Amino acid sequence: MTIEVDYRFPAGVDAQKQAKIIAVGQTAGTWNARFTDREATLKSHLGEVISVENDEVTGQSIATIRFPEKNVENDISSLVTMIFGKYSMAGAAKVVAVRLPKEYGLQPQFGITGIREKLGVFDRPLIMAIFKPALGLSAQDHGGIFKEVAFAGLDIIKDDEILGDLDVAPTLERLKACRPIIDAVKQKTGRTVLYAVNVTGSADKLLDKARLLVREGANALLVNVLSYGFSVLQALAADAEINVPIFTHPAFAGAMCAAPNYGMAYSVVLGTLMAYGGADAVLYPAHYGSLPFDKLEEARIRDILRDRNVFPVPSAGIHPGIVPKAVSDYGQDVILNAGTGIMDHPDGPASGVKAFFAALERFNKGESFDLENLPDGVLRKAVEKWGNGN
Amino acid sequence: MTIEVDYRFPAGVDAQKQAKIIAVGQTAGTWNARFTDREATLKSHLGEVISVENDEVTGQSIATIRFPEKNVENDISSLVTMIFGKYSMAGAAKVVAVRLPKEYGLQPQFGITGIREKLGVFDRPLIMAIFKPALGLSAQDHGGIFKEVAFAGLDIIKDDEILGDLDVAPTLERLKACRPIIDAVKQKTGRTVLYAVNVTGSADKLLDKARLLVREGANALLVNVLSYGFSVLQALAADAEINVPIFTHPAFAGAMCAAPNYGMAYSVVLGTLMAYGGADAVLYPAHYGSLPFDKLEEARIRDILRDRNVFPVPSAGIHPGIVPKAVSDYGQDVILNAGTGIMDHPDGPASGVKAFFAALERFNKGESFDLENLPDGVLRKAVEKWGNGN
Repeated sequence: MTIEVDYRFPAGVDAQKQAKIIAVGQTAGTWNARFTDREATLKSHLGEVISVENDEVTGQSIATIRFPEKNVENDISSLVTMIFGKYSMAGAAKVVAVRLPKEYGLQPQFGITGIREKLGVFDRPLIMAIFKPALGLSAQDHGGIFKEVAFAGLDIIKDDEILGDLDVAPTLERLKACRPIIDAVKQKTGRTVLYAVNVTGSADKLLDKARLLVREGANALLVNVLSYGFSVLQALAADAEINVPIFTHPAFAGAMCAAPNYGMAYSVVLGTLMAYGGADAVLYPAHYGSLPFDKLEEARIRDILRDRNVFPVPSAGIHPGIVPKAVSDYGQDVILNAGTGIMDHPDGPASGVKAFFAALERFNKGESFDLENLPDGVLRKAVEKWGNGN
Repeated sequence: MTIEVDYRFPAGVDAQKQAKIIAVGQTAGTWNARFTDREATLKSHLGEVISVENDEVTGQSIATIRFPEKNVENDISSLVTMIFGKYSMAGAAKVVAVRLPKEYGLQPQFGITGIREKLGVFDRPLIMAIFKPALGLSAQDHGGIFKEVAFAGLDIIKDDEILGDLDVAPTLERLKACRPIIDAVKQKTGRTVLYAVNVTGSADKLLDKARLLVREGANALLVNVLSYGFSVLQALAADAEINVPIFTHPAFAGAMCAAPNYGMAYSVVLGTLMAYGGADAVLYPAHYGSLPFDKLEEARIRDILRDRNVFPVPSAGIHPGIVPKAVSDYGQDVILNAGTGIMDHPDGPASGVKAFFAALERFNKGESFDLENLPDGVLRKAVEKWGNGN
């Protein structure tokens, strides 16, 4: 099996020449007569230019390079080094697709099916919240908020990605404030609520902390993969003690994906690399949210993730009024993740959660989300505040 | 103490507005009346817009934001999440400077002074080579090359960043092939030669492997920090068992630094973040090398690194003929790192090393590097092949 990568070059770049530079320079490199006896082996490590196609309208070119799988360690970090390590510094070029053998890297330990089994919810989108304000609440405050939303029917909550292991609300204390509520909800309603705890620190301490959190009852984890490293995601995902779903956050993704002609496409980093890196659920911006995001790129991420049973979690600016759009785009296998869209509901976070479920119900009945048709209640108040996505 | 970050916005962006979004959105976020009792704490976590300056010629603006140090964990990963996590996805903006308190993060364990002490070389630039071809040689081949260059007077050698722990030349076997030569050089000449072994794998295995390599005699390590994660660099640098200098490679830096209006400046990623992340020596492209690199940005990296006693290692396209330029730019505290510029010398790698020393000697005497003045010998052959940088 081989690895195929599409590189896009802007108009004016000699893509044929660049493709050869990549195929050689990112693999064995060149050699001279001193290595004639190693020639066959050296050649077997070279990349190969499969095609170079020029778009006559835009002037852009796409070069496809095939890399030998034996050049890398079946992980994301060595893959990234090979396909775009030194070459990322060579000029304008963007990695727009990476195709990997199915058995490459890691499969999600839980993914869509595993998370649904944990929750016992099989037939609707999952509703997820983010603790807000992001930073500055105490662990007890987190417990208080969690109680409101968990009993209101929420499926999953996560820390804000900004909130590390800080004095104001240490990670283990946040868990300890929330874990009894997970148990109480289970006991009273039979429902499971996941709390994806943000796990941080230097790689060794982060792994130790993740194991400790799981021992202390964490039933999900959140990782800022692009700030901490794909090698950390892999270690977490492959660790026998860390047997809970891993939610990955896209923090810092824009630094490597947002530029038109540099870096990697969002669908590569938040789609392919996360899906083969061991994530169970991947957060990324929704195109109708508060961050600028391309609809087509969002659809690519969705499809790449689902192809590997990874849960897509469109995020940022999500509120009850966008449910019709989101469900039209995603169907049932999606996690709708809202921060202020739940926490800042005029009647409080519990009403924010209920407004999402009211929205799902209304959408399923085919009823309008226009204000003039919405009856009084939590959904109407949400739409009054945040609109209906139109 | 506080953290200050400069964000640059292209013409047409309302920098004042964006600065406020960053100061709030990347810290506590907003809150409503429910949290009045937490108001003082929440406020204390907010960022603060220090200044917004517009360049009338270019139309660009630079906003400076001050962040509370208590929002982060005294490391690079949480810092990156805070200053450019979600906001990296918000539109065109580039982080062009990060100013940290001196005690932030890690100091280099060895740095310039420690590496010089290990080598016993205090008064000249250090000469470093890269094993080439990058990938496809056996461990024995590595040993053979190492013997040639080590006895020729080389100070440091490193694996190519592409070369992970692969079947063709497993990491530990490479070390075992080279370590006896380190000992032989020491015994015969009294000199120390460092071999920076590329350490790879998932975070847990990478750390274990680094410890094993050090136990087996590795006297330096190479890390692709941007592929593996800053949290991994920190773990390596802080590990008591890993008491050898850490060389960091810039692989993948272009993905987050090369775009004019997105990501972070090279001087932030390869300067500030490496220097405060625990690196002892940092590789980055030289502006007169084979990669496009800005002279001013290179000078910034050099100064940021040296300010923290971290060794600057300008790389990529380095050969003996650029010694006059490099020493004029850097003086003595620099590691000149050459791949093919040593390995592909017409008379072989040993002559490549000798050509560098001949170049240093000639430069110190103030003699010309023009071909018509160069006497026969290894330096002349190098300049014939690669030029003299003019």
